[in-house]
Amino acid sequence: MTKKTEPLPEEEVMALLLEKRLHFATAESCTGGDIARRFTELPGASAFFKGGVVSYVNEVKTALLGVDPQLLEEKTAVCREVAAAMAEGARERLHTDMAVSVTGLAGPDGDGVHEVGTVFVGLAVEGKTFVHEMHTGPRSRAGIRRAAGDCAFDMMRRWMQGLPVENDE
Amino acid sequence: MTKKTEPLPEEEVMALLLEKRLHFATAESCTGGDIARRFTELPGASAFFKGGVVSYVNEVKTALLGVDPQLLEEKTAVCREVAAAMAEGARERLHTDMAVSVTGLAGPDGDGVHEVGTVFVGLAVEGKTFVHEMHTGPRSRAGIRRAAGDCAFDMMRRWMQGLPVENDE
Repeated sequence: MTKKTEPLPEEEVMALLLEKRLHFATAESCTGGDIARRFTELPGASAFFKGGVVSYVNEVKTALLGVDPQLLEEKTAVCREVAAAMAEGARERLHTDMAVSVTGLAGPDGDGVHEVGTVFVGLAVEGKTFVHEMHTGPRSRAGIRRAAGDCAFDMMRRWMQGLPVENDE
Repeated sequence: MTKKTEPLPEEEVMALLLEKRLHFATAESCTGGDIARRFTELPGASAFFKGGVVSYVNEVKTALLGVDPQLLEEKTAVCREVAAAMAEGARERLHTDMAVSVTGLAGPDGDGVHEVGTVFVGLAVEGKTFVHEMHTGPRSRAGIRRAAGDCAFDMMRRWMQGLPVENDE
C-alpha cells in the first residue's frame, strides 16, 4: 500500500528515454506482447516506442527478425544466442536506438530440455548486445512473464543510467 | 460473481481454432500488443497463434506490414483502409489463416481529426477482409484497448462460426 506512488519500471524507462531522446523496439516470444502492452499503457508512448514483433513461433523469429533457422534448430529458441539475435533484429528492422527481447519457457508445459522459468532477456544497443539469463523457479505463467518484462525494463534503465548491465558479455 | 466461469472471448476463440485447425496473427497499433498478450496468457497458445506485429508508429506499419505510406499520409492511420491493409499484411507475412488488426485513438490525447475512442478493427481471411468501426465514447485508455481486443476476438469467433461479421464490406 505504501508503494502506491512508486513509479512503475516502465515509467522510469519512459522518463529516461525522454531525457536522452531515445526510442526502442521489442522482440517478444514467451512474453507474447506484454512488454509492448505495458509500455503503451502509458499515454504518450508513441514518442519513445516505435513498435515490436511478437515472434511466438520460430518461423516468425526468422521471417520478421532474421534469426538464423540453423541456430534455432541446433540450440532451440531458449538460449542466449537467440535472445541476442532477436534484439539485434528488432533494433535493425525497426531502426531504433535500443531493442529488448525475451525468449524462454513460461510454462506450464516444458520443452523436455529447459526448466519452466528459464528465460533469456536481451538488450541491443549500438555496437553491443547484452543478455541476461533468468531462472525464476516455479511461478505462474503470468508471474514469469511479468518478471521477464521487469528485467527488460531494468536492463534498459541501467544502460541509460550508465550502470553495469547484468551478464554483460 | 456469477459470471466467473464464463469463458473469456480469447478462450472461445481458442476452442474454435482447435476445432477448425486454424491459426492467426495480429497487427496492433493502439492496442500495443494487448491482443497478443491476452491470447498468449492461455497455455498452449503457440499451437494457434504464430505471432504479430506491434506497429505503433506509421513507419513500422509500412516496414513490417507493407501498408502504403501514401495511404497513411492521405488518410492518417485511423481509417478503415489502414486497418484492412494491416490485417492483410500480417496474414501474408506471417502465413496464417486469419489475422486481426487494430488501429485507432486510445487517448487521452486526440489527433485533431478523430474523436478519442475511434477505432478500426480488421479481420483478414482468405479472399476477404472485414473492418469494424468502433466509437467507444469517453472511456479510459485501458477500457478502449480492452474493447478493441474484445471486438477482434468477436470477429474471429463469428467468422469461424459462420455468422455474419459486422460491417462486412
